[in-house]
Amino acid sequence: MTSTTSVLEGNRLALARLLTQVENDTPEGRAALTELFPHTGKAHLIGVTGGSGTGKSSLVNQLALYYRKSEVSRKRVAIVAVDPSSPFTGGAVLGDRVRMRDLAGDDGVFIRSMASRGSLGGIAQTTAALTQVLDAAGFEIIIIETVGAGQSEVDIARLAHTTLVVEAPGLGDDIQAIKAGILEIADVLVINKADRPGVENTERALRSNLELAHPTKRVARHHGRSVSVPAPETEPGLWLPPIHKTVATEGKGSPELAESIASHAAHLHQSGGWAARDRARLGSELEAVLREALITRFHEHIRHEKYEEIVEKVLSRNLSPWEAVKSLLNGSSK
Amino acid sequence: MTSTTSVLEGNRLALARLLTQVENDTPEGRAALTELFPHTGKAHLIGVTGGSGTGKSSLVNQLALYYRKSEVSRKRVAIVAVDPSSPFTGGAVLGDRVRMRDLAGDDGVFIRSMASRGSLGGIAQTTAALTQVLDAAGFEIIIIETVGAGQSEVDIARLAHTTLVVEAPGLGDDIQAIKAGILEIADVLVINKADRPGVENTERALRSNLELAHPTKRVARHHGRSVSVPAPETEPGLWLPPIHKTVATEGKGSPELAESIASHAAHLHQSGGWAARDRARLGSELEAVLREALITRFHEHIRHEKYEEIVEKVLSRNLSPWEAVKSLLNGSSK
Repeated sequence: MTSTTSVLEGNRLALARLLTQVENDTPEGRAALTELFPHTGKAHLIGVTGGSGTGKSSLVNQLALYYRKSEVSRKRVAIVAVDPSSPFTGGAVLGDRVRMRDLAGDDGVFIRSMASRGSLGGIAQTTAALTQVLDAAGFEIIIIETVGAGQSEVDIARLAHTTLVVEAPGLGDDIQAIKAGILEIADVLVINKADRPGVENTERALRSNLELAHPTKRVARHHGRSVSVPAPETEPGLWLPPIHKTVATEGKGSPELAESIASHAAHLHQSGGWAARDRARLGSELEAVLREALITRFHEHIRHEKYEEIVEKVLSRNLSPWEAVKSLLNGSSK
Repeated sequence: MTSTTSVLEGNRLALARLLTQVENDTPEGRAALTELFPHTGKAHLIGVTGGSGTGKSSLVNQLALYYRKSEVSRKRVAIVAVDPSSPFTGGAVLGDRVRMRDLAGDDGVFIRSMASRGSLGGIAQTTAALTQVLDAAGFEIIIIETVGAGQSEVDIARLAHTTLVVEAPGLGDDIQAIKAGILEIADVLVINKADRPGVENTERALRSNLELAHPTKRVARHHGRSVSVPAPETEPGLWLPPIHKTVATEGKGSPELAESIASHAAHLHQSGGWAARDRARLGSELEAVLREALITRFHEHIRHEKYEEIVEKVLSRNLSPWEAVKSLLNGSSK
């Protein structure tokens, strides 16, 4: 009780402690989440995903700096850096250290690294829970940063209202590097390290894959800067992912990128997309919690010996997993 | 019934059709899996994972060619190429075309690409199911190839008896590229494209990360070729991941790599690790099928209106997801 009050009052130490409890899925963490839940729903969740070597972390730093400097609407920013492929490496910690230089000492910024724990559903779920705590704690912008372009990143990106996909020139095979699957979830595309050779190739590959991913849209180029325009046949209110070029290490392109992100938020509010994404996110979170509760309840109600007996039958190939489950479910009518 | 008989008899067309049914999770596919299940458990499952640009696919091709050419024990080889980040891109298809050149026309080789469908648990589960069909169809070596080093790849790699992790020199930041997490699951390490500059750096990074991942082991170098030797204090029978250098495009290093894979299989049989990995794989498959069955049964037994009502309460922040699930479970005592 006290801890959630401290978090709501902006106590950073209490916040850090609570995030650890939530990450470790302790009973205290769960209780706090329930207490904090009514205070959530205010933040703009921004997902940033991209392969290693794209300079994604620098870009996130630049965005955070921009939001902090912005005279008009200085915002409190939290960053959750998720590295699902790294259960215990120091990578995330290293990232934090680099960040410290630019963002240290600013109470309006909170950075949290999360290494993967347990199963995959688990990562997305844990990230969602951390995000809720930060949302309740009053951070208006929450950036969820994920490494890579695998399914896990897609799942985590789906937590966000606005998803940025970051690419960079010269990262191996263009066909492999720029996945149509990841483009499907992109609301804003960023080619970072745009001062490097090969940027035209990256942009071309991105653009043609983007057209593949959004066959009803047409992506065009205006005034030297790349923007998307609706094709004549598309419905009004349809969002077309713009392509931005940035050089994060020099801060180039961040204001324009932040503008696009703000436009996307405005678009979501106008089109009803904001509520739809909230619904999708909370719906899948509810489903995930439900799944966990169901399997936990199942194991609580079945005799361990019976379960092991059935596992043995599967191992000896006398029962297929599907037959085994049928048999387990028939036997466990509570 | 006829289709599974044809598959057991080695009919390739029937096999391809059945794999599609299994991938799409049709009732026919499920029925066939149950029929085929008693015929599984013979294949050596080899997982190959690594980032894009490591030349992983060429390496898998070379391994397949080696197993086919091997005079002593010519083996039937199946390859399942999983690309979880690519729901609909042509990447996998392109990979197949490149493969055709080397492996086409050989009835002892079967290649199957799988793009991601649905949820993540889904990918690992579908891959497991495809693997079972191929196992029943008599393929003695089944190579499960995944792109990237995310959690999904780790999950898929866990399906295998022997897991290869492939790296290559010069793929961006060494700290980022070589994840301790992925090394933890490696039984054999491969530095492909070993004719490229930077191979020493890659090996050094790999070796120090490997020591981090296996703190009780010592990785050493012998006769110019890298091998692992047990540290004096390690228990006998402990497997130390060897590091192999290959140039797959020229076929260099494949025989030595295949030897290491065979040694690992022998080690698993001697140490009881083979049975342990089978148990882990089938156990988690059973658990996955059970989870799906539980959530399906839950939704069948709850009134849609009641579920929607609860979802609305969550959306309006009147009920946290955890409270919602409690309420759902109390109401649904079948």
